[in-house]
Amino acid sequence: MIPTTDVVIIGAGPVGLFAIFECGMMRMKCHVVDTLDMVGGQCSALYPEKPIYDIPAYPKITAQQLINNLKEQASPFKPVYHLGSQVIALQPVEGGRWSVVLSNGTIIHGKVIIIAAGVGAFGPNRPPLANLEEYEGKTVFYYIKAREEFRDKRVVIAGGGDSAVDWAISLAEVASKVMIIHRRPKFRAAPESEARLHALAQQGIIDLIIPYQLDRLEGENGILENVIVKTLEGEEKKLEADYLLPFFGLSMNLGPIVQWGLNLERNHIAVDPSSCATNISGIFAIGDIATYPHKLKLILSGFAEAAQTAHAARALIHPGEIWHFEYSTTQGVSSLL
Amino acid sequence: MIPTTDVVIIGAGPVGLFAIFECGMMRMKCHVVDTLDMVGGQCSALYPEKPIYDIPAYPKITAQQLINNLKEQASPFKPVYHLGSQVIALQPVEGGRWSVVLSNGTIIHGKVIIIAAGVGAFGPNRPPLANLEEYEGKTVFYYIKAREEFRDKRVVIAGGGDSAVDWAISLAEVASKVMIIHRRPKFRAAPESEARLHALAQQGIIDLIIPYQLDRLEGENGILENVIVKTLEGEEKKLEADYLLPFFGLSMNLGPIVQWGLNLERNHIAVDPSSCATNISGIFAIGDIATYPHKLKLILSGFAEAAQTAHAARALIHPGEIWHFEYSTTQGVSSLL
Ligand SMILES: Cc1cc2nc3c(=O)[nH]c(=O)nc-3n(C[C@H](O)[C@H](O)[C@H](O)COP(=O)(O)OP(=O)(O)OC[C@H]3O[C@@H](n4cnc5c(N)ncnc54)[C@H](O)[C@@H]3O)c2cc1C
Ligand SMILES: Cc1cc2nc3c(=O)[nH]c(=O)nc-3n(C[C@H](O)[C@H](O)[C@H](O)COP(=O)(O)OP(=O)(O)OC[C@H]3O[C@@H](n4cnc5c(N)ncnc54)[C@H](O)[C@@H]3O)c2cc1C
Repeated sequence: MIPTTDVVIIGAGPVGLFAIFECGMMRMKCHVVDTLDMVGGQCSALYPEKPIYDIPAYPKITAQQLINNLKEQASPFKPVYHLGSQVIALQPVEGGRWSVVLSNGTIIHGKVIIIAAGVGAFGPNRPPLANLEEYEGKTVFYYIKAREEFRDKRVVIAGGGDSAVDWAISLAEVASKVMIIHRRPKFRAAPESEARLHALAQQGIIDLIIPYQLDRLEGENGILENVIVKTLEGEEKKLEADYLLPFFGLSMNLGPIVQWGLNLERNHIAVDPSSCATNISGIFAIGDIATYPHKLKLILSGFAEAAQTAHAARALIHPGEIWHFEYSTTQGVSSLL
Repeated sequence: MIPTTDVVIIGAGPVGLFAIFECGMMRMKCHVVDTLDMVGGQCSALYPEKPIYDIPAYPKITAQQLINNLKEQASPFKPVYHLGSQVIALQPVEGGRWSVVLSNGTIIHGKVIIIAAGVGAFGPNRPPLANLEEYEGKTVFYYIKAREEFRDKRVVIAGGGDSAVDWAISLAEVASKVMIIHRRPKFRAAPESEARLHALAQQGIIDLIIPYQLDRLEGENGILENVIVKTLEGEEKKLEADYLLPFFGLSMNLGPIVQWGLNLERNHIAVDPSSCATNISGIFAIGDIATYPHKLKLILSGFAEAAQTAHAARALIHPGEIWHFEYSTTQGVSSLL
């Protein structure tokens, strides 16, 4: 039996999670799909422990705490999560519904599709090293979930951007040794962070391995022993290390989404801002992936888009229904379950 | 010396408060004016102790806690509050600025005006009773700030809508006696609340005084002793009481705002949703008072409008400046102060 639901949400980032809640308030049930094996999108994958300051009514909240709260807020509506699989196809079926095909073979039928796919399915830019797969997920990581994992360890960070520099500074507080490899003397990070990096290097707390590039890994069964780096001139250096963290950025891979006939503008889906409706009836897009004039790529804007979309989706799912708008305060949540 | 600031915000409800923060993130200083002697708008004046369920990342938060958090989030930017006075006039002055005139005689010059005036300056619908002023603020209240004030007191509530019914139910938990007067047998409240009211009445916890209307107050020096009520046929009843709470709704008094030449649509200010710009350059409107196609009168929508407006206002205040968009996470707040 193919499961059928009111709404299929593609992407379980902060905006997709809040869309579950808003749909729930409009009495619509959701299935939610994400390529990652966890909810939270960029917040959980890229900067879980960093503070965000511009979530309304939170003077400061870490990205992961924000996600935890959003997940809790959505939970009364019993969303069905499909994690660790990508939506690879979307096809209209009879009755004005959509068939959503996941990479793990699951098919879901939904009356409405809300695309909250952010910057697309996540993919780190992987360095071209032999046997890299052997180490990935064991001693080579592209995302950091908890700084504590690196306490008293020797860590090599590769890259010259904000992530590389910020994590070098942050991990220096817990790791026994932090080395940062960059192929050029100049970093592409916020000036303040770069100044801080150089100060820590002068104090001997961080080793700058410059100008070097990754050459190969040495170790056994995925347990890293040495990271071998080289200059352009071929001069080699061996870095004894427990972990390698390559921070060469993310590839924004919209992937299959570009093939669904949606109007795109520079890798974003063009929507009507009042409803976040796309050019295809029944398909909406919200959050980072959606664009319209003066769009701000902020989490709080995505929240408001989720509310607009839930209202528009309700009108599609229950055409002709007379909707009596009620404040959450008056209506509560439990009355809707 | 007339104080000059970047932005004058009219209204210190939740949306006006968040606009202070968003303007601060764009390096703009704000003065904020409100008729009420406290910040918080409808949240603080009408339902401070009620839970709101649809603030993103707060599964549940009382209206007053929401306001406290928003005020704290705005505080690093040192807004100047002018409470207890109404904006009574707005006039253009040379240099593309605005002169904002308050009812207490203060004048403020601002480069940009953000109207976050909600449903207008607050005014409860007052019952036509002789000597009412004598009791107002002492034993007759139109808003409830804290339920505890009514512990072990005899309270008469007048009105048949949601506020009257909800407060009757709520105060029954603390007051020694709750009487609710309504001129008709049928209430205009949510069916669930009405059912609860009748159940409490049957248990003898709430007295339904139906169909009666307020006739006069008895007491001395503003200390209430009796509320006298009458049927249409002239039959009188004397209710011994410590407090009278008339809940006949709020009058939405846009007041002076309607005279400023702004495009209005049924008592709301029409704006361009991408910036919340009004028809007059330099004047923006956000929150409940602003309207555009498919506008949702939700606090979370007002938050997103505040962000859009701050970006648009910045472009007006610093024309030609090249703006480097940074996430709050990267930029922090303290670097802006
Ligand atoms: C370092 C950093 C700091 C930031 N700081 C702030 C800040 O202070 N304030 C702020 O407002 N914003 C900030 N942001 C931006 C914020 O994180 C994004 O705006 C937000 O995450 C967007 O949410 P989203 O739900 O739209 O998308 P995302 O968080 O990108 O989530 C989209 C999800 O969709 C999934 N997906 C995509 N395609 C598919 C598919 N085909 N099938 C299945 N799943 C798919 C992805 O795997 C991903 O999990 C910051 C971002 C970064 C990187
Ligand atoms: C019982 C109840 C429950 C609600 N529940 C929810 C809910 O669950 N979720 C939700 O999103 N929303 C809810 N709302 C609505 C929410 O409170 C409003 O959307 C919100 O308060 C609007 O914020 P605002 O800042 O735009 O305006 P307001 O809160 O109305 O504040 C506007 C302020 O401007 C001031 N002002 C007006 N004119 C002038 C002037 N000329 N000079 C000086 N000051 C002026 C007023 O005094 C007022 O303080 C509820 C409302 C009520 C009454």
